[in-house]
Amino acid sequence: MNTLQLNLGERSYPIHIGSNLIGQAELYKKHLKGQLTAVVTNETVAPLYAQSVIQALESLGQKVKLIVLPDGEEFKTWEVLQKIFDGLLESSADRKATLVALGGGVIGDMTGFAAACYMRGIRFIQVPTTLLSQVDSSVGGKTGINHPLGKNMIGAFYQPQAVIADLNTLKTLPAEELAAGLAEVIKHGAIADSNFLDWIEKNQTALNACDPTAMEFAVKRSCEIKSQVVAQDEKEGGIRAILNFGHTFGHAIEAGMGYGEWLHGQAVGCGMVMAADLSVRLGLLKQDEALRLKKIIEALHLPTVPPQLGVARYMELMSVDKKAEGGEVRYILLDGLGRSKIQAVEDRYVIETLQAMNVG
Amino acid sequence: MNTLQLNLGERSYPIHIGSNLIGQAELYKKHLKGQLTAVVTNETVAPLYAQSVIQALESLGQKVKLIVLPDGEEFKTWEVLQKIFDGLLESSADRKATLVALGGGVIGDMTGFAAACYMRGIRFIQVPTTLLSQVDSSVGGKTGINHPLGKNMIGAFYQPQAVIADLNTLKTLPAEELAAGLAEVIKHGAIADSNFLDWIEKNQTALNACDPTAMEFAVKRSCEIKSQVVAQDEKEGGIRAILNFGHTFGHAIEAGMGYGEWLHGQAVGCGMVMAADLSVRLGLLKQDEALRLKKIIEALHLPTVPPQLGVARYMELMSVDKKAEGGEVRYILLDGLGRSKIQAVEDRYVIETLQAMNVG
Repeated sequence: MNTLQLNLGERSYPIHIGSNLIGQAELYKKHLKGQLTAVVTNETVAPLYAQSVIQALESLGQKVKLIVLPDGEEFKTWEVLQKIFDGLLESSADRKATLVALGGGVIGDMTGFAAACYMRGIRFIQVPTTLLSQVDSSVGGKTGINHPLGKNMIGAFYQPQAVIADLNTLKTLPAEELAAGLAEVIKHGAIADSNFLDWIEKNQTALNACDPTAMEFAVKRSCEIKSQVVAQDEKEGGIRAILNFGHTFGHAIEAGMGYGEWLHGQAVGCGMVMAADLSVRLGLLKQDEALRLKKIIEALHLPTVPPQLGVARYMELMSVDKKAEGGEVRYILLDGLGRSKIQAVEDRYVIETLQAMNVG
Repeated sequence: MNTLQLNLGERSYPIHIGSNLIGQAELYKKHLKGQLTAVVTNETVAPLYAQSVIQALESLGQKVKLIVLPDGEEFKTWEVLQKIFDGLLESSADRKATLVALGGGVIGDMTGFAAACYMRGIRFIQVPTTLLSQVDSSVGGKTGINHPLGKNMIGAFYQPQAVIADLNTLKTLPAEELAAGLAEVIKHGAIADSNFLDWIEKNQTALNACDPTAMEFAVKRSCEIKSQVVAQDEKEGGIRAILNFGHTFGHAIEAGMGYGEWLHGQAVGCGMVMAADLSVRLGLLKQDEALRLKKIIEALHLPTVPPQLGVARYMELMSVDKKAEGGEVRYILLDGLGRSKIQAVEDRYVIETLQAMNVG
């Protein structure tokens, strides 16, 4: 087992990465405070892993409440969030209760937000069971739900007590979701570590096969990079935004297609190709570097051709993106592979990229 | 104008107390960041004060969005909170937008919670227009909404950028609401400052008449006491709980009667009489001190006779109170007038108090 530390002063916490972790009681033990733990999961994950987690918690003398939500991004709503609050209130959960988020990004974001809000804040532990959540969403404290008018519009920065990333859970992951997670792995290399990007390129077969040794390194290095960025800028006042590389274009794809059509990681994969093209146009990245990145994305079974929503629709979707501040859209660009830069970009360059990529 | 400072490191903020403040642009100026401010208020307050606030903000070049909610505790719900989010998204509010909470405790709590959650946190300014909110709820960062199963169950600790308490707004306050606010003024004296309690006793006529000089001192001293407590314990891990004196019994009255039947301040007034009686039974407070406190509460037109809900119902209601942790109900008690103490109390003493007060 590898254990990293996310350093945020009194909000610091460990990230455990390894095999067969979710049933290990001692990993939960020191993060609990009261006698009640609620395990929040979804209908897909519950039959696979809920029992191991519950057994571990019960062995510590915890009373465990299981809260099972429907599975899918379309359920990341206030109405479904209420089910967590209802479950907690039914169990008379007090301020010492702990939540365990057992599942992917949707479960982690919702459970974290519920923990942030219940009685103005209770403890929670992230137990991510998808690659995407292990390498990205479970680390860094972004929590929230969607609003009918925008994704992740309602939420909180709220850090967990610990992250327990069990690599065994990746074995049951559909191929498409594995690829979606690998998009964020590539992203971490692209923005911050060209050596890691080299490693990904060399290990693409092992990664596609979900080889345990390869996955362990990919998760560990991703969490290290993300932790270092978050430690510098917890609430995204500046540098943390580099973690959104590929996301401005990606969110436009997700929103334009209707949420759920493209997986988030797929949209980010394609979005990175678009952001790299934009970086080339601005003279920051070489043509062959952008091509190399595109090939890595392709090799990991991610889409690189954006949907034909039309230039105007893309521009509209990107202007409402959260990163649009004070009327000016800021993009995360690559300043060479392994280095990133945040910059306001004039519309005409973005339009050039969209036209070059034949978005219709 | 008096200006106090609530010291919370990087989350410190000023509390301005005085007459004719809500239209003073310079009080808002340095707390704004972007170009958009949303003024959140209710149907009762909007016609009285919204225009002055909007004019002040517009004179600073702000685009102002007015969001008017229905008036009343029964609207402190997620559904009504959505109207704030809807208004912000309709105005394309970004992370630099600022919310202004113009109204009483319900508006302050909801607007603060909306600010805490919108895009994971934007700025907000408290402009409390009731005595209760000026001396209590606008200071200290408790925000939230009610859940069908409990009051203030969903919320956040989230500090405003500033509090602007305009004493002029108290002139339009119904007598009942003035008295409800005075309950929290008495509370501050009772838990922390016997000299202030003496002053309240001597100035009861001026306070009941809403005399400007008396009100200014009452608000200022209340905010000072509350600020000092909150600065020591922002998230209520310990000492901050003394601000809940009278609230365990008070919440039982509010919940037992059905929210809205008793004003919060009325329930707290009566709850303080009950908590003082309990303090006497535990040997912490003298009989004549409890009687003196009761007389002050009575003199400020607050109820001192609890509703006849029956002992069993009171015990049930108090056991689900948030302060019930790990199965044991902790009470805020008076250790002499002007000093407080947090202590777990055996049921039998509480039952004695309830029986002595003839709750049926």
